[in-house]
Amino acid sequence: MKRTEFLQKSGLIAAGAALPTTAARTNMKFIHHVLFWAKNPGNAAEVAQLKNAIINLGKLPMIQNVHVGSPVVTDFDKSVTDGSYSISVVMIFESAEKENEYLHHPLHIKFIDENKHLWGKVAVIDSQE
Amino acid sequence: MKRTEFLQKSGLIAAGAALPTTAARTNMKFIHHVLFWAKNPGNAAEVAQLKNAIINLGKLPMIQNVHVGSPVVTDFDKSVTDGSYSISVVMIFESAEKENEYLHHPLHIKFIDENKHLWGKVAVIDSQE
Repeated sequence: MKRTEFLQKSGLIAAGAALPTTAARTNMKFIHHVLFWAKNPGNAAEVAQLKNAIINLGKLPMIQNVHVGSPVVTDFDKSVTDGSYSISVVMIFESAEKENEYLHHPLHIKFIDENKHLWGKVAVIDSQE
Repeated sequence: MKRTEFLQKSGLIAAGAALPTTAARTNMKFIHHVLFWAKNPGNAAEVAQLKNAIINLGKLPMIQNVHVGSPVVTDFDKSVTDGSYSISVVMIFESAEKENEYLHHPLHIKFIDENKHLWGKVAVIDSQE
């Protein structure tokens, strides 16, 4: 019997209740999610060039954390998942002010100028707790 | 003169190079981003009910970290930002296996069954480093 089942069946937690978190978590107040569709998705060198430029940009110190990844489509969520993009960039910020600082940073502007020929489309989803 | 400009103009870093990261960062190997469009976005009680159910679900211990937020549209990215959704959920997992464990967890299935009447549309973006 798994821990959840045990706790539920024993009445230690309600059947509908989530388990308490076991690991420490840091705050993730502000999310900046950018999806890039490469102009030439079949050109691995161009996609790698764009990805490397994003990884380098992600080192800027006002970014709390960053993820640069490739699409995954699970069987579970297949019918509602968009796996058509080339590169997914998730940046965590402490606040909207920190994101604003990043967006207007000279290295971000330079990144756009130097790499915009590599993408055909960009989509942004920002959210704040 | 800002630190970046100083470092660039002094030649301590190349003009195109990002600054070294100053804060410690944890790995974010796998991102599961779910957007919910409420069935009745004008019904604050229903949106709050859904949001609370998500926050509770987010306590499951195989989730490395979670963000539950509302749309932000910045002036900078306005032309490419989707701010039409009601609730944005970003979950971080250590691996695809951990996400799979979450997706098939009885409390996740129960969450869907109990709350699916509250949303009109769901979109998923998954990505892995």
